[in-house]
Amino acid sequence: MEQGLRGGGSRPAEPGPCLSSQCGADQAASVSLLSAAGAEPGSRTLAVAAVLPAGGCGERMGVPTPKQFCPVLERPLISYTLQAMERACWIKDIIVVVTGENMEAMENIIKKYKHKRISLVEAGVTRHRSIFNGLKALADNQPNSRLSKPEVVIIHDAVRPFFEEDILLKVVTAAKEHGAAGAVRPLVSTVISPSADGCLDHSLERARHRASEMPQAFLFDVIYEAYQQCSDYDLEFGTECLQLALKYCHIKAKLVEGSPDLWKVTYKRDLYAAESIIKERISQEICIVMDTKENKEHISHLLEEVLKTELNHIHVRSQALYNAGSDIQHIILEQCYNFVCVNVHFLDFKFASPSQKMESLMCIREFAKKMKKRKVLLYGLIINYSQDEQKLQESLRQGAIIIAALIKERNSALIGQLLVA
Amino acid sequence: MEQGLRGGGSRPAEPGPCLSSQCGADQAASVSLLSAAGAEPGSRTLAVAAVLPAGGCGERMGVPTPKQFCPVLERPLISYTLQAMERACWIKDIIVVVTGENMEAMENIIKKYKHKRISLVEAGVTRHRSIFNGLKALADNQPNSRLSKPEVVIIHDAVRPFFEEDILLKVVTAAKEHGAAGAVRPLVSTVISPSADGCLDHSLERARHRASEMPQAFLFDVIYEAYQQCSDYDLEFGTECLQLALKYCHIKAKLVEGSPDLWKVTYKRDLYAAESIIKERISQEICIVMDTKENKEHISHLLEEVLKTELNHIHVRSQALYNAGSDIQHIILEQCYNFVCVNVHFLDFKFASPSQKMESLMCIREFAKKMKKRKVLLYGLIINYSQDEQKLQESLRQGAIIIAALIKERNSALIGQLLVA
Repeated sequence: MEQGLRGGGSRPAEPGPCLSSQCGADQAASVSLLSAAGAEPGSRTLAVAAVLPAGGCGERMGVPTPKQFCPVLERPLISYTLQAMERACWIKDIIVVVTGENMEAMENIIKKYKHKRISLVEAGVTRHRSIFNGLKALADNQPNSRLSKPEVVIIHDAVRPFFEEDILLKVVTAAKEHGAAGAVRPLVSTVISPSADGCLDHSLERARHRASEMPQAFLFDVIYEAYQQCSDYDLEFGTECLQLALKYCHIKAKLVEGSPDLWKVTYKRDLYAAESIIKERISQEICIVMDTKENKEHISHLLEEVLKTELNHIHVRSQALYNAGSDIQHIILEQCYNFVCVNVHFLDFKFASPSQKMESLMCIREFAKKMKKRKVLLYGLIINYSQDEQKLQESLRQGAIIIAALIKERNSALIGQLLVA
Repeated sequence: MEQGLRGGGSRPAEPGPCLSSQCGADQAASVSLLSAAGAEPGSRTLAVAAVLPAGGCGERMGVPTPKQFCPVLERPLISYTLQAMERACWIKDIIVVVTGENMEAMENIIKKYKHKRISLVEAGVTRHRSIFNGLKALADNQPNSRLSKPEVVIIHDAVRPFFEEDILLKVVTAAKEHGAAGAVRPLVSTVISPSADGCLDHSLERARHRASEMPQAFLFDVIYEAYQQCSDYDLEFGTECLQLALKYCHIKAKLVEGSPDLWKVTYKRDLYAAESIIKERISQEICIVMDTKENKEHISHLLEEVLKTELNHIHVRSQALYNAGSDIQHIILEQCYNFVCVNVHFLDFKFASPSQKMESLMCIREFAKKMKKRKVLLYGLIINYSQDEQKLQESLRQGAIIIAALIKERNSALIGQLLVA
């Protein structure tokens, strides 16, 4: 399915450090798959490293920040890519290649988002020189290096955050067999070749060509040899690693059909798309705290049911709360990793005094400000708990719509507001 | 600038019929440009028509609705494309080619969004057959047709809503001179050619190739001749109109470098991007109604100033309001074409009774429901009009942040809510 928005995306990217990469559960399966595909039975697991060139300046983006450092929901794009990479526990080392001026920023990102297995290497002036620098750091002969030469190396872009572990496995397995492998996609536009005077010379048959995407993988010795042999012209103007393996090592890379989620964040519109995809993914696990005192548990369950029609595949965690203060904090810190929390109160409007509502408002505003510092967005919602069954249903439906909207939009400007359904 | 998000996008796409395409103002300039470029001095204006194939089923989108009919801010994507096309007043006829089963839906879209100069033609089973059907409708010999044969015909995709009139002018001018012309863009990915066994045969030099995009333009006689000569194979499997002009009429199309905003909505992520771009564009003109009774005009001006720091290039229209009922309706219908309206009240929290706020809430909720039917999103905002200068400034700043967020998100689930700054 497109970008694994549902179903496929079992481990959504999270905009915070709380949901740690779930290494372990799938590790055995992945590694045995690797062993079965390439190495002899019973042999040691394949040693795999990854190199992520992140030295680009993002000139096509039209913004001053290099695109890999552009914030998406306040977190730099590259951090999502690293998180996705880290999920493949069988990757031993991840080399991120950044320019000297971005080195400190990158170190801070690694610290802030608790990235593991990362080594930083200084970028060259072109993409190929940067990748070469990354490979050099992995080569045997580096003094004082904690890194060791892998058998297979993955090369991936820092600005392609949306990929599943599956495609990494596929290119690594194919590289082990063929020496080189890369993900490809069908062409979206027809490719044409212009003549010198800017007119159409010929157009290429779309079905017979592919767009070369990332990730790619290589036997380390193959790609390292290719870069060592590589001409200055190729290092300056080349774009395609698979081509270097072909030209200098006569290795015909295996092409692996990838899913649409391999796209590269290139233009500003791609940042918008990335933000929406991440919002949608993280909307699948939320924390709703309901004020269920006074025998209103059944209402909570009703709301939960209505909510499930608004938010597909959502896990609602409701909880009885007798105090909107310390308990909510406890729940959020222990269980909530979606960073959106809606505190729901049920009040019968006919009997509730206006001051009751204002009191709730003032209480939640202060608390929301505090929670924001912990990166949790907190909203309040009052639902009209009417004795009239039809009115109650309407209020619940309205409440569910409001909750779904708050969760999907993650609008920090509206925290602490007390909304009414 | 990328996608003309600011500055360049002088006539943003609007999700409603109120802001009519501003034909007239630029018409003289465009037409004289066309005359100067192609026709002899003093000759009649060039007759130009456009064909938009919209018969695709959007299989790559992963959603059941064909992508041209997918709603973006509740308005079908194709309607934005038509709106952009209509801005070029010098295009005489716009032929939209849709499948029989979507004919009625398309007619409703045209009626609802008041599109002009549109004729509908039934699609063929492939893209080329659909375009051919559109061209046939424009050819001279159609009985009972109000259409007349144009000198130049533009071919554009229904799913490329973001383009400026400028690129239409460029391709039309170039087509008049060369017989054919098309917009091109640099390649984002390297294009490779696979061998029969799914391995890399060779990769193409990225700098020597271009992605062929839309719009394209042709002398009508050239492209019509090409389609008449065209083999069944080309009609079934071909993708590139420029190639047909080359193959069957030996016309080498002029290639015109386009801006990034020519992109085609292909995947679901592109719909996300389209929505964000449209939201950003239409956030530039808003309607804010302020309750400025009791000598609070100076506060309105203060808020206006703070707002300008939150929303770039925004036109704030504030208005004294003595009654939040009928007057607001009048203002919205007369002046507001952004469909987001924020009704701002200033209250000193120290002295305001809670019931005053609840009253405002109930009043605005009912009114917002009514306004939603007229496609206007209405929110209420109370700003703490404190005597303490620092508190007042903080409230104003908070109010501006909330207003900016409401306008940018256009969240219909939150209409009628009374927010507090």
